[in-house]
Amino acid sequence: LRADFESLDYEVSDNLLYQKEEKDKSSKRWKLYWRGIRRWFICFLIGVITGITAGIIDLGVEKMSSVKFSSVKELVDRCVVDYCMYSPHLIWLLFNIGLVMVGAVLTAYIEPVAAGSGIPQIKCYLNGVVVPHVVRIKTLVTKVVGVICAVAGGLAVGKEGPMIHSGAVIAAGVSQGRSTSLNFDFNMFHDFRSDTEKRDFVSAGAAAGVSAAFGAPVGGVLFSLEEGASFWNQALVWRIFFSSMVSTMTLNIVQSYIKGHPWELSYAGLINFGTFDSVQYKFYELFIVIAMGAIGGLTGAAFNHINYKLTIFRMKYVQRRWLQVIEVMIVAAYTGCFAYVLIFFSNDCKPLRENRESMLVQFFCNDGEYSSSARLFFDTPEATVKNLFHSPPGTYQVLTLTIFATGYFFLACWTYGLSVPSGLFIPCLLIGAAWGRIVGVLLGMTGHGATFGLSFYSLVGASSQLGGIVRMTISLTVILMEATANVPLGLPVMISLIVAKWVGDQFNEGIYDLHIHLQGVPLLGWEPLPMSANLSAKSVMSHPVTVLRMHESVGRIARILKEESHNGFPVVDEYDPHTPKIVDGCETFGTFRGLVLRSQLLMMLKKKLFQENPDINEIIGSLKMAHFNDCYPRYTPIQRISLTSEERNYHMNLEPFINQSHYVVLESASYTSIFKKFRSLGLRHMVVINFRNEVIGIVTRKDLARYT
Amino acid sequence: LRADFESLDYEVSDNLLYQKEEKDKSSKRWKLYWRGIRRWFICFLIGVITGITAGIIDLGVEKMSSVKFSSVKELVDRCVVDYCMYSPHLIWLLFNIGLVMVGAVLTAYIEPVAAGSGIPQIKCYLNGVVVPHVVRIKTLVTKVVGVICAVAGGLAVGKEGPMIHSGAVIAAGVSQGRSTSLNFDFNMFHDFRSDTEKRDFVSAGAAAGVSAAFGAPVGGVLFSLEEGASFWNQALVWRIFFSSMVSTMTLNIVQSYIKGHPWELSYAGLINFGTFDSVQYKFYELFIVIAMGAIGGLTGAAFNHINYKLTIFRMKYVQRRWLQVIEVMIVAAYTGCFAYVLIFFSNDCKPLRENRESMLVQFFCNDGEYSSSARLFFDTPEATVKNLFHSPPGTYQVLTLTIFATGYFFLACWTYGLSVPSGLFIPCLLIGAAWGRIVGVLLGMTGHGATFGLSFYSLVGASSQLGGIVRMTISLTVILMEATANVPLGLPVMISLIVAKWVGDQFNEGIYDLHIHLQGVPLLGWEPLPMSANLSAKSVMSHPVTVLRMHESVGRIARILKEESHNGFPVVDEYDPHTPKIVDGCETFGTFRGLVLRSQLLMMLKKKLFQENPDINEIIGSLKMAHFNDCYPRYTPIQRISLTSEERNYHMNLEPFINQSHYVVLESASYTSIFKKFRSLGLRHMVVINFRNEVIGIVTRKDLARYT
Ligand SMILES: Nc1ncnc2c1ncn2[C@@H]1O[C@H](COP(=O)(O)OP(=O)(O)OP(=O)(O)O)[C@@H](O)[C@H]1O
Ligand SMILES: Nc1ncnc2c1ncn2[C@@H]1O[C@H](COP(=O)(O)OP(=O)(O)OP(=O)(O)O)[C@@H](O)[C@H]1O
Ligand SMILES: [Mg+2]
Ligand SMILES: [Mg+2]
Repeated sequence: LRADFESLDYEVSDNLLYQKEEKDKSSKRWKLYWRGIRRWFICFLIGVITGITAGIIDLGVEKMSSVKFSSVKELVDRCVVDYCMYSPHLIWLLFNIGLVMVGAVLTAYIEPVAAGSGIPQIKCYLNGVVVPHVVRIKTLVTKVVGVICAVAGGLAVGKEGPMIHSGAVIAAGVSQGRSTSLNFDFNMFHDFRSDTEKRDFVSAGAAAGVSAAFGAPVGGVLFSLEEGASFWNQALVWRIFFSSMVSTMTLNIVQSYIKGHPWELSYAGLINFGTFDSVQYKFYELFIVIAMGAIGGLTGAAFNHINYKLTIFRMKYVQRRWLQVIEVMIVAAYTGCFAYVLIFFSNDCKPLRENRESMLVQFFCNDGEYSSSARLFFDTPEATVKNLFHSPPGTYQVLTLTIFATGYFFLACWTYGLSVPSGLFIPCLLIGAAWGRIVGVLLGMTGHGATFGLSFYSLVGASSQLGGIVRMTISLTVILMEATANVPLGLPVMISLIVAKWVGDQFNEGIYDLHIHLQGVPLLGWEPLPMSANLSAKSVMSHPVTVLRMHESVGRIARILKEESHNGFPVVDEYDPHTPKIVDGCETFGTFRGLVLRSQLLMMLKKKLFQENPDINEIIGSLKMAHFNDCYPRYTPIQRISLTSEERNYHMNLEPFINQSHYVVLESASYTSIFKKFRSLGLRHMVVINFRNEVIGIVTRKDLARYT
Repeated sequence: LRADFESLDYEVSDNLLYQKEEKDKSSKRWKLYWRGIRRWFICFLIGVITGITAGIIDLGVEKMSSVKFSSVKELVDRCVVDYCMYSPHLIWLLFNIGLVMVGAVLTAYIEPVAAGSGIPQIKCYLNGVVVPHVVRIKTLVTKVVGVICAVAGGLAVGKEGPMIHSGAVIAAGVSQGRSTSLNFDFNMFHDFRSDTEKRDFVSAGAAAGVSAAFGAPVGGVLFSLEEGASFWNQALVWRIFFSSMVSTMTLNIVQSYIKGHPWELSYAGLINFGTFDSVQYKFYELFIVIAMGAIGGLTGAAFNHINYKLTIFRMKYVQRRWLQVIEVMIVAAYTGCFAYVLIFFSNDCKPLRENRESMLVQFFCNDGEYSSSARLFFDTPEATVKNLFHSPPGTYQVLTLTIFATGYFFLACWTYGLSVPSGLFIPCLLIGAAWGRIVGVLLGMTGHGATFGLSFYSLVGASSQLGGIVRMTISLTVILMEATANVPLGLPVMISLIVAKWVGDQFNEGIYDLHIHLQGVPLLGWEPLPMSANLSAKSVMSHPVTVLRMHESVGRIARILKEESHNGFPVVDEYDPHTPKIVDGCETFGTFRGLVLRSQLLMMLKKKLFQENPDINEIIGSLKMAHFNDCYPRYTPIQRISLTSEERNYHMNLEPFINQSHYVVLESASYTSIFKKFRSLGLRHMVVINFRNEVIGIVTRKDLARYT
């Protein structure tokens, strides 16, 4: 576990100042209404902007693809006659490599956090860990431009996963109402400038992102709830749901405009799985579903293992940024060439029925036919998934699908973790839809042909593969149910996800969790490991504890802030730093009164709230939370606060600022109970006391995460 | 607030005995696996049995209705010729009154808790309050038979709401693995015999009930989460989801068999809203949706107000059980007659296109026509809702719909609260669908006819009306989204619910909450009222506190248990009942060590765990949680435990049994923070301490509920 990951201060510091302002607000009802209205407005904005962003990504990919295609088309037409087909394909390849290079350069040099899907980073954020730069505007721009380049450049990636991260950044930005990079400041949202409010809005943003990506607002809400895993907050969940709905609605409007028939709202998300209305299944087919889930779990575990080894390799040898860019370009080249491998080995030509797709390519087929194996590659991944679900039987040969599934498996495995924004959902769905369709075709050959629906097995294969790789359960089931708009299909999807997760978990973790652990992030799971049942608070806590007295000298505070890197300090009575007190063989540190945070101490030092100041009572009386919030999130570090030696002898009274309702645990409390409290309340510190309410230790995230 | 409502002991008593068994389990991994498998199996059973029960209700209603119809049919055929039409209709009416009387007698005399929809009772249970008899087998049987009688008897009720209560009872019964009424006992589930596990399984049962009723598994999950409102428990939510899925699947299979095409699974729930696939809407129509939401809120508030007054009237004057039965029969008579009022005033005859419905009646129409206003009444409510949604324009005149909506409004208002199981969802949806269709028809008359879809406005009207009456938000939106299988329609539904709830909340509460408050149940909402912000723990707590010492005399324990009705007692050190200790003007009651429950003390007294017993150490060493669980939930009351006067001088050591991780609050903690903790952790007691960890007060549900 790396030491430099800090936690969010999700817990509200219930100090006298905060209580005073809450009483004031509750006495003036209009202030509460105004705060509620502003919260709903922010959630509305988050939904709208996320929907627009998704539309921008979709439009960008489409424009880039058509530019690419049209610049190659004349060459194609000429070269079909002149037998110089290598020429347009070379141009195509170079175009791809060039696009991808732009995305890779942006990511590697401007904002490396934008690489990958962003789901691990948002999981960490909702878990309560701050991943540096994860919700900055720069990250958003890099992500959007990068994913357009990656998808248009033909990499084995999807554009849906990055929407979740984008939604979260949008939420963080909108809710703060200001930007240091862009240098503006709406004062309207100043009371939302705290980790608590920001994390709540980021939940809404992540849900809006999921909703825009898949057309699945309820799935988005459940994703936020799953990853936040805190206590149920009715008003918050309702607002998150509203945000998701507005997001999918906005994307709907935007895409209607783009596609040319404004106001006819029929595009729910970035991906459209097609109509699953007429898909039915028999009860005994559920046993085949279980088997497919197991296959998905095994292949998913293999995928995760290979990707894990690959990531370790990259962390050791591909550290330099230009090397990362080169690697991305190599993968783009391979991806481009792989199509030819597929076409060469599997001469899968089908008669040209309706020339709906402009990407149909003839290749080695006769006139009046097109190569369906080439189509698998030259279509966008989303269209390919839809084709694999819904094409009539006989469109794809088993050999084609096998080569495609296998090749795409390794390609996607290689691609995830590159230094370019990339979604993982679509590649996994593709692989699974391909082998799922194989299962359907093989079952059809057994002679009961008419009863086995290819759509059904494609879908189950897709969900098994995706579940085997990402190991998500609740939100993924709901996302797939909403994306297919078919509730009865939810049960086979759920069964395949249950089995895939269970089988895969016997080998390794989900891919997002693997990457998170490789980065050393102290993530807390949903439950503590069973073997930790015999631990108590006393065995996990930190001891000794650095505490402050209620009336502490400025010099001591400054020295502690400078020498130690802790962010929470218990405030005690009856404590003398020079005379340790031992009770029952354990050193105690005074009677617990509350907890104070580093950020609060820095504010107090900056504003010089010294007891010796003659106006101190008036100053404290006129303090507002806004004074504290204004410096959020970048508080003046202790090194930049200058104190004279006279000031160091002054004292500060910490009582108005300490968190009176801070959570304490007895030393005998079990690890399980403190883990549950810590996770569900989103705490950052827990003070351990003995039965006399004397501080004996402190527990933070890193102490708990050591055992997960 | 009535004093006799007790809370569930949802908090796990983390005592030494429990910790010992958890360590033991965690060291033997197979024991944990076995517990997990059994939990999943129980959830599977809950889903299956709930689905079957829903099928039984559906089948029962259908059979009863066809018996009713066929016994009248010959008379109808004869009387159309002989002009004695009053004869079959009188028989119909008497049949209805008879059926309804059976249901009312069962409910009033056997199990009054089964009256109404059951949703208020389940809300209370998930909130943590025990409503007596709410999850007994007798209640289930009364509910199922009663709702069949009520629906088949033509009352203005639905059969969906009671499914939620039924699912909860099934869950409570299955998870305990035994029944005192039916006298059997599967020992396999003995470690689930605690309030904690039972409440978790009841959440799954309620979700399965919602899922079977509406074909909305995700809506069911969100209903359980909303009402439970506790911290997020990933494994539990996943199991609840599985339960819901299995429930809707089972109902699907059962109904496929009943309808004659087994294994073709296409019936998702008890109610089928029809296909909303082609329904689209324009952006500006959302403003009309807002207006309709406001109308729904106003009419819903009126509905609730009238029903509230009616319920108060019933509580005063309709107390005797035979009076209740008579009232139900009167309502059934009125309901039967109302159809004729509608038909008489609105001679709405339509040409007989396809004779799909066997209930079409001719009445005063010419041959070759049928009375569409009669059809509104003689169809089942579910079929009527579907017709209102999807019938082509022109099927119903505005006058017909107006009379129907108004009449049904008052009929449904009168019907809810009768002494018979009755669902409220369908009547509300009916009223709303009717006036929503009126709105659609009126808009169509403005000249932009083709653009305003009647289905859309019917649906929005239905959701507005339902939202205005029940004021549910998240789960209701998802239920309607799943029932219509159309994600983009979720936004208008959501907007109508938001507006209806906001408008309605200006006048009164939702109907379930009104009934809950009339019963005096100490329900805790999702948030504390704003005016309670200046309360602290000290102002709400009970003072003085009855405490027990760690080594307490049996006589004192027995006396306290007999004289006081409390269920939780703080266990302290350094306390002398005869010499009160006063600190800072406030009496303290010793240093807090943990909390012990009445049930635990009764078990200890029954097993005679006295310190003076020479074998005491062996006995305590061989104790298991199972010994405590076996008596759950009906512990031997203190009056039935006999103690000799010698035994009263003995002592008991409470240390192995006290909850070491009990939640304490400082006296200065704000009401808001203790409310949040109490609600989200499902607590029953919170001990208030001063900064020396000395007990000064105790907070329970009734202390908090006083301020909501
Ligand atoms: N006031 C303190 N006195 C002594 N040890 C502390 C104190 N605060 C934290 N620790 C310990 O220091 C170690 C590192 O924690 P760290 O200082 O990073 O905590 P933090 O920054 O307050 O919380 P987090 O890193 O989770 O945001 C942990 O083991 C923790 O228990
Ligand atoms: N041990 C105690 N000593 C003194 N007062 C108590 C004690 N326990 C509860 N009370 C108070 O008695 C009143 C009634 O509570 P009651 O005895 O019904 O609590 P309970 O049965 O333990 O909890 P609940 O009724 O919520 O299930 C409350 O105001 C409560 O604060
Ligand atoms: Mg730290
Ligand atoms: Mg009580």
